[in-house]
Amino acid sequence: MRATVMHGPRDVRIETVPDSQIKEPTDALLRVTRACVCGSDLWPYNLRTEGEDAQRMGHEAIGIVEDIGSEVQTLKKGDLVVMPFAFSDGTCVFCHEHLHTACLHGGFFGNGGMEGAQAEALRIPQADGTLFVLPVSPEDPLMPSLLTLSDVMGTGHHAAVVARVAPGKIAAVIGDGAVGLCGVIAAKRLGAEQIILLGRHPDRIALARDFGATDIVTGRGEDAIARVLDLTGGLGAHAVLECVGTDQAMNTAVGIARAGGAIGRVGVPHYETVPSAGPLFFKNVVVGGGPAPVRAYIEELLPDVLEGRIDPGRVFDRTVGLDGVPDGYRAMNDRESIKVMVKP
Amino acid sequence: MRATVMHGPRDVRIETVPDSQIKEPTDALLRVTRACVCGSDLWPYNLRTEGEDAQRMGHEAIGIVEDIGSEVQTLKKGDLVVMPFAFSDGTCVFCHEHLHTACLHGGFFGNGGMEGAQAEALRIPQADGTLFVLPVSPEDPLMPSLLTLSDVMGTGHHAAVVARVAPGKIAAVIGDGAVGLCGVIAAKRLGAEQIILLGRHPDRIALARDFGATDIVTGRGEDAIARVLDLTGGLGAHAVLECVGTDQAMNTAVGIARAGGAIGRVGVPHYETVPSAGPLFFKNVVVGGGPAPVRAYIEELLPDVLEGRIDPGRVFDRTVGLDGVPDGYRAMNDRESIKVMVKP
Repeated sequence: MRATVMHGPRDVRIETVPDSQIKEPTDALLRVTRACVCGSDLWPYNLRTEGEDAQRMGHEAIGIVEDIGSEVQTLKKGDLVVMPFAFSDGTCVFCHEHLHTACLHGGFFGNGGMEGAQAEALRIPQADGTLFVLPVSPEDPLMPSLLTLSDVMGTGHHAAVVARVAPGKIAAVIGDGAVGLCGVIAAKRLGAEQIILLGRHPDRIALARDFGATDIVTGRGEDAIARVLDLTGGLGAHAVLECVGTDQAMNTAVGIARAGGAIGRVGVPHYETVPSAGPLFFKNVVVGGGPAPVRAYIEELLPDVLEGRIDPGRVFDRTVGLDGVPDGYRAMNDRESIKVMVKP
Repeated sequence: MRATVMHGPRDVRIETVPDSQIKEPTDALLRVTRACVCGSDLWPYNLRTEGEDAQRMGHEAIGIVEDIGSEVQTLKKGDLVVMPFAFSDGTCVFCHEHLHTACLHGGFFGNGGMEGAQAEALRIPQADGTLFVLPVSPEDPLMPSLLTLSDVMGTGHHAAVVARVAPGKIAAVIGDGAVGLCGVIAAKRLGAEQIILLGRHPDRIALARDFGATDIVTGRGEDAIARVLDLTGGLGAHAVLECVGTDQAMNTAVGIARAGGAIGRVGVPHYETVPSAGPLFFKNVVVGGGPAPVRAYIEELLPDVLEGRIDPGRVFDRTVGLDGVPDGYRAMNDRESIKVMVKP
């Protein structure tokens, strides 16, 4: 079968690999019908060092269950399912607390030697706990939005939840990638009165406005902070959704957070420490977030997708086959594309 | 009148200063009946640099209203009141949100040129919003516990609230100073099932056990982390109350926090950045806290003090007059005393 393999910086290849197969009785084999490239895939795309082991890529998918292990109970062959970016057993203490990304028997797809979803198929560990059966057909027009439930919509929602978005609050979303745009949707959905997007790409800004952003701040650093303070009566935003993962984005987050507010960070942190320990303290600002337990959020978000109240699938602006994946990475990295869908 | 003035490192003096007086129509003049030395006073005691302006010290007091400005409406001469460590107008947007330590017209006693409470008297700005009238007489036996409502009990409570202590949860309290000990009381009061104190002084440990600590960890650094993990089935504590303010304490907090847990930091941070941005992220641990809005907490905590359900006044193990204040600093700094009460 064919799969996407990252070998080095900006070296993504489509290769023939051994067919995926069931190894554990709790596994399923997933035939991928939709996958995509994630903003987080661009971190290794740019920063991977030579000499690291090659890594199968992709952690977002919808697909059809092709086979199941002997202990799988809730799935059957032919089920159409969405695959969260993390696998989880659904039964451990953390899964019961709806923090599936801390599952005691879990892990992440396309990472640490796990198979990836930018492929014809992949092995799904802990299939009962991981996969979520979708009540639609494989070519349903909602497929793009349903695919975002595997990561970016759930991740944007996580940022909003951790940042304590609530009716009447002011939310600020740092980053105009797919996660930031889904953060705008999530902030709107949770009732934010004012939603400020910090971003600089016209196509993304236009989409953010459609999703509910009320204000756009295109500057960076101190300029961005001053502008957000201007827009918020000098006080800052109650809820800051940090959807980038850089030190600069975190500095901006601290600067624009209102006293007593919260920062929900979902950008994979490429910084060692959280800046501004003193200002955060004297403002009593809470910093939280991490890998979103998207498995837990599917049940909450799915009805809004099925009934058309949210349309996060609009973040996809390009569709490729497997052979187009390497150029998809390039296009997203060059900001030519917001998010690339893959139809293997 | 006489007041405590800090001139340089370990140079605390009792001096004759101009009598405090009302300057603004919203002021009150407070005759101090009880004050105390705070663990946070030891930071400048040790770290103050030569050449800084002399600073009047003390931010915790009970006293009698001796005079009021023309606009003060809720207080009258002769009222016995507790003075929170921060003054606040009680009417701004942050006060209405119960974050009095972010008051738009507020500030901190014994700091930045403000008068201090380790004195015969002091000027109270924003008196209506700041002072809380006590329903007891000035020599009531509950005076020590009532005095802790000006800071340490409210601060320990804040740590517990931010760390999300709740019934059945495991709490870990880092630091066995007066705030940490009050954190134990707060964790117990909010229903923690297991309360682990990280401290090393026998007198404080004994008091912590009386207050409800179920386990004591006397090691530091990696040893302490390993021991807490041992005590918590390898998972860590849901709620970590960081009551020290050092980099080492924060590192320990991150190490012992359970995935999905929260760290409430109330030790004034003497570190520039919050360590371990990555581990905090991948565990989805929330970090919050700051100057406690003790004014907001008095109403919640006061009934428990008046009715004897909590007895935080036991943190005082020494009482001095004003002349004894310099030696009180020394005794607390040498860990001879947990907390020193001052009867001017």
